[in-house]
Amino acid sequence: MPSEFDLIRRYFTRPTRHTLLGVGDDAALLRPTPGMELAVSTDMLVAGKHFFPGDDPRKLGHKALAVNLSDMAAMGATPRWVTLSLALPDADEDWLKGFAEGFFEIAQTYSVDLIGGDTTCGPLNLCVQIMGEVPAGMALRRSGAKPDDEIWVSGHLGDAALALAHLQRRIELAPEAVAACLPALHTPVPRVALGEALVGIAHSAIDISDGLLADLSHILEASGVAAEVRFPALPASIFLVARLHEEAARTCLLAGGDDYELCFTAPPSRHEEVMAISRELTLPLTAIGMIRSGTGLRLLDAAGQEMKTGAMGFDHFA
Amino acid sequence: MPSEFDLIRRYFTRPTRHTLLGVGDDAALLRPTPGMELAVSTDMLVAGKHFFPGDDPRKLGHKALAVNLSDMAAMGATPRWVTLSLALPDADEDWLKGFAEGFFEIAQTYSVDLIGGDTTCGPLNLCVQIMGEVPAGMALRRSGAKPDDEIWVSGHLGDAALALAHLQRRIELAPEAVAACLPALHTPVPRVALGEALVGIAHSAIDISDGLLADLSHILEASGVAAEVRFPALPASIFLVARLHEEAARTCLLAGGDDYELCFTAPPSRHEEVMAISRELTLPLTAIGMIRSGTGLRLLDAAGQEMKTGAMGFDHFA
Repeated sequence: MPSEFDLIRRYFTRPTRHTLLGVGDDAALLRPTPGMELAVSTDMLVAGKHFFPGDDPRKLGHKALAVNLSDMAAMGATPRWVTLSLALPDADEDWLKGFAEGFFEIAQTYSVDLIGGDTTCGPLNLCVQIMGEVPAGMALRRSGAKPDDEIWVSGHLGDAALALAHLQRRIELAPEAVAACLPALHTPVPRVALGEALVGIAHSAIDISDGLLADLSHILEASGVAAEVRFPALPASIFLVARLHEEAARTCLLAGGDDYELCFTAPPSRHEEVMAISRELTLPLTAIGMIRSGTGLRLLDAAGQEMKTGAMGFDHFA
Repeated sequence: MPSEFDLIRRYFTRPTRHTLLGVGDDAALLRPTPGMELAVSTDMLVAGKHFFPGDDPRKLGHKALAVNLSDMAAMGATPRWVTLSLALPDADEDWLKGFAEGFFEIAQTYSVDLIGGDTTCGPLNLCVQIMGEVPAGMALRRSGAKPDDEIWVSGHLGDAALALAHLQRRIELAPEAVAACLPALHTPVPRVALGEALVGIAHSAIDISDGLLADLSHILEASGVAAEVRFPALPASIFLVARLHEEAARTCLLAGGDDYELCFTAPPSRHEEVMAISRELTLPLTAIGMIRSGTGLRLLDAAGQEMKTGAMGFDHFA
């Protein structure tokens, strides 16, 4: 069986673009850009929890990095460097080859250098840490939302949750809907360009990994504000629109995670600039409500009446 | 059961000292010191592989950070920021409390900020990533060793391997020896001050995590040089000295990992400066051999005859 060092060399050593010293020493070395702050985030993905053990390793390689790129997007940071730690039940070369291909494909798309990591034997576990740069003082924090800000969401919500619900047999989808929704679950597209464009425009941002209501609530809590969200304004997945009378479908929309769209707030005076970003990126951006003073999140129906919200989010130990 | 967010708040949110934004947003924010390079390293520890599932969580908290601090030491970097990702089979609060205590105790000792992380449910897995700073161009790389450099080792070697061999019943130790060796295995002391002091003096460095011969070989390979190591000069653990005729004892000395001492090379002209550092830090530093041109590592006995080396290191998939 090839050694750890062989595996690292074979699959995880690629030329870097903006790194002084990459994989192969006690630490990597990099030179941060003067005047920039460093944004640092990490995500751990566990088999049976965040993915199925038999999932396509190539898609898993994509997703492991995509969810971290999404955190950079939510800060308005430009992703630059990443480390990858892997615990593997065995040194399955086919799996490693596929995983590395998926990982490096998206790394190249976003010009991110893999600078180090660790490989060990154990129950399948992927831990990625990412570092990005953002102009000093300009990062999009959760705590910046202000009363009268508009609340925005990118893309459409619910595709990933629908795909997962289908795989778990909680919802039945037509084959064409499955085919359309699965990529959102397996190969999400991080909104990096959107995050960068929102620097200086948005007051706050978060990525939707735990579900819209849960993630928006994090903004409200961090900012000490309340929100009114118009349910009919929500950009639901086209596969959800016709079935929003079903509780399970509403849950996908409001509390489904894993879409990795951005939720952000910006003053109404910047409305046109946000719409211009939408056109430039050919990415739907939808105003779904307003930040208010006070506390709590009110979901309003078409008549302006408050709706009951069910499951508010996704907790890893619940 | 408390939620993930509650757990993070309760056990892993502490004031930071040199961080703009710590735990609680999509990413942490920090401002690198102008003129410094960033050294980045990560280690993943798996139950049953790097520690026993029943190990004292407090000591595990210490060790998870210590092994990463040791990587900073090996680069000559000053550790500054760390992230921690945990997969836990269940939210065992006693375990988390102990782990956090051990982790923050050593974090405080070395003035390292915990700036973020992830908590999830899964087979016990600890992944730590550390970032440190080193003056631009001055990091201690593995690739800098030059012919005629002296090869040095800090502290004593073999205590941790002896303790492990005893726990695994491969070697029998007297109770007082067990008591003296176990701390090396469970609560190793990273040689951070030594690494910092060697900047500008040493040509190359590595920390001894996989065993002296294996780790020194990494320096030789990266630097394209050979080495002669004098076996009688090796600073063996006092519990090994009397039994170096035993193969198992020699293996602890030459191929035992986990001591987290530094192995480094420096030109003979800096010999006195290295000795002065030893006195200042009250840490034994021992010259064990010389770098030569060519390839390979020769181990010499008291008569200058080449000795056979058995197991050269520790491979995570071997």
